Amino acid sequence: MIQVAIMGFGVVGSGVAKIIEENAALLKTRLGEEVNVKYILDIRDFTGHAMAGRVVRDFAVIEHDPDVKVVVEAMGGVHPAYDYSLKAIRAHKSVVTSNKELVSLHGRELLVEAKKAGVRYLFEASVGGGIPIIRPLSDCLAANKISSVTGIMNGTTNYILTQMKENGTPFADALSDAQARGFAERDPSADIDGKDTCRKLSILADIAFGYQVDPNEIYCEGIRNISPRDISDATEAGYCIKLLGHARVDEEGITPIVAPFLLANTHILSGVSGVFNGIGVVGNMVGETMFYGHGAGSAPTASAMVGDIIEACEVSSSPVLWEEKAPEGYIKDVTTCPFARYLRVKGTRADSLTTLAECAVRAVSHEDETAFFLPPMTDDEFAVILKMIPELTVTSSIRIFTPGEFVPKNG
Amino acid sequence: MIQVAIMGFGVVGSGVAKIIEENAALLKTRLGEEVNVKYILDIRDFTGHAMAGRVVRDFAVIEHDPDVKVVVEAMGGVHPAYDYSLKAIRAHKSVVTSNKELVSLHGRELLVEAKKAGVRYLFEASVGGGIPIIRPLSDCLAANKISSVTGIMNGTTNYILTQMKENGTPFADALSDAQARGFAERDPSADIDGKDTCRKLSILADIAFGYQVDPNEIYCEGIRNISPRDISDATEAGYCIKLLGHARVDEEGITPIVAPFLLANTHILSGVSGVFNGIGVVGNMVGETMFYGHGAGSAPTASAMVGDIIEACEVSSSPVLWEEKAPEGYIKDVTTCPFARYLRVKGTRADSLTTLAECAVRAVSHEDETAFFLPPMTDDEFAVILKMIPELTVTSSIRIFTPGEFVPKNG
Repeated sequence: MIQVAIMGFGVVGSGVAKIIEENAALLKTRLGEEVNVKYILDIRDFTGHAMAGRVVRDFAVIEHDPDVKVVVEAMGGVHPAYDYSLKAIRAHKSVVTSNKELVSLHGRELLVEAKKAGVRYLFEASVGGGIPIIRPLSDCLAANKISSVTGIMNGTTNYILTQMKENGTPFADALSDAQARGFAERDPSADIDGKDTCRKLSILADIAFGYQVDPNEIYCEGIRNISPRDISDATEAGYCIKLLGHARVDEEGITPIVAPFLLANTHILSGVSGVFNGIGVVGNMVGETMFYGHGAGSAPTASAMVGDIIEACEVSSSPVLWEEKAPEGYIKDVTTCPFARYLRVKGTRADSLTTLAECAVRAVSHEDETAFFLPPMTDDEFAVILKMIPELTVTSSIRIFTPGEFVPKNG
Repeated sequence: MIQVAIMGFGVVGSGVAKIIEENAALLKTRLGEEVNVKYILDIRDFTGHAMAGRVVRDFAVIEHDPDVKVVVEAMGGVHPAYDYSLKAIRAHKSVVTSNKELVSLHGRELLVEAKKAGVRYLFEASVGGGIPIIRPLSDCLAANKISSVTGIMNGTTNYILTQMKENGTPFADALSDAQARGFAERDPSADIDGKDTCRKLSILADIAFGYQVDPNEIYCEGIRNISPRDISDATEAGYCIKLLGHARVDEEGITPIVAPFLLANTHILSGVSGVFNGIGVVGNMVGETMFYGHGAGSAPTASAMVGDIIEACEVSSSPVLWEEKAPEGYIKDVTTCPFARYLRVKGTRADSLTTLAECAVRAVSHEDETAFFLPPMTDDEFAVILKMIPELTVTSSIRIFTPGEFVPKNG
């Protein structure tokens, strides 16, 4: 049994506990042992909560329990998170964190301490929430000299800018909307003035370029002054406006900046909308890469932290071994799965075309052909339709990717 | 000194040798030792080549040299790559490969053998070329039940489909163009008929879902029949057409498919154009993620393989430690870097507006304001321009992200 302590039982800390519970079987398969949350460090009252029995208020309990192998730091802020992390490491416990402020200021020191103590200090969740970026950058791209990192790393501001673009909303209204939906804090300044992005950029730049980049010394502009006219002018010229954290290195040094930028709509980061994050990395061998996903939220952030718990407990097991054979019938025949379809036919029989038009969600008439966008159906169902219209020749039939609807039918 | 043998000295194998040479200092910092290519196994004639002295024709030389720690398999095909990989592993050498055909058919067996021998079998380069995907999927997302993987995993077909969309080119012409540019093989069938994507999808599905998915049993349709009219109808309805490898799991089993799909232009994968690849992974905790980059080519593929060489030699060192302090002046002031800019001003002085219009690459007139898109200049240069037009009020000034031009000036 791998014993874990969670410090801070808010959105992120409780998310970690939830994954450990819900994906328990998966974790056991992976680690060969069960993972158990032995302690929760939090000063709030959890009377009546299922985990109330595990709540402690004194960090020393965790520090002095040799059973605790991994400490999950989800407290936020520098103090007392820094002191507790340091003490946990010195007590030979690995520490896993989502705390970008702490990592951007003291990450190096805690890594050095962890190395000394023979444990790990891991912070995949500190940048880009659930998006794998720290390990890909440190390990998979280790053969590259990194020349730049460029990210949309704050979901709040990206949501606001996306709303402003899509609905022409002024900044103040988009901010209120984000606050109402829980995407922005009541005091939103760390997000909209760029501080949060500075911290994340600092961590990426540290790893990418090998030198401590102080988050407080990064040139930083927020998005308060962006107006609907800025956005409409940008749109007309083929750009969107994004709050970017960007750092680049050349022979002379590193240049970090956090600011709103006009970004060409052909750039892969321009497709990163709403609360999503995207982080681009350019290496001298790999060229341009980009990592995309949920940059915040309980489950995504906790996903990265539990990934780090696994990493802290293993020496190395990647890639994971898979089973030699799936159970009979487990690899399914795709023809039994419903797909929406684009269908184009040749022929003029009006009644046949009407049959198709009746099931279609959209039709396009060409001189000599008609195209239909059909709703999801299996190959068998599709064959039935085709049989009804033998006088029409199918000139094209292509599936439509509808992620939410690609659900095989029961029975 | 870490001794490496490269089997197959074609595009990929020579790329690995090149990275080991060009990024030697980086590798030494990372591993604490130099990496040396001791042998190259290839039956071709390399007389006069700088590495000719390292070429051997007999695999047994590599197999029986205890100095060789890592074998890079860049031969392609199943035989003799399979036999050599197996023998290398049994001789306690880690094997690093880009061979998707071999991994999709025999990856599991070779992983089992590697585990027995206490070495690694790593294949980050087998899917998505330089894009980190195998390790993020195996490790960073290890806390997730993966529900689907969906990728544009073949640069040749994506280039062809992008050309067809952008220029209205018929398939045959786009294929010839891709062949002329070296993006498609003379016999392009493995790419355009979807076989290459099947192999990559098989590997992703193995890891994501935990069961061997035979690449030869995946439903597979290529792109030969896609016509310009399919693409224009799709475009009009807000879709693009992409060759997707997609596999999804539910309670009943895994459904894998490789086929051209209409994909909504709002989907993040729709932004993956030309020879680029993008791979989407959905997990029950992290939600939607996507990994983007060069899916083929000498340097990107070799980047992933050298990343695997590092992985094979280390126990664990991620995240890499960075230096506490950068040299004086190494973190540069962003105001000395030239940026293109969007500038909007209020005021009607025609001569002042002319001054701006003369340096602008684009101007937009509003009722009460004028906006200009200015070419890259430093903050100092920008200040000089602003001084020339004191009678105009600046209402907006936003930098434009121009990756290629963000190069600090010398002096």
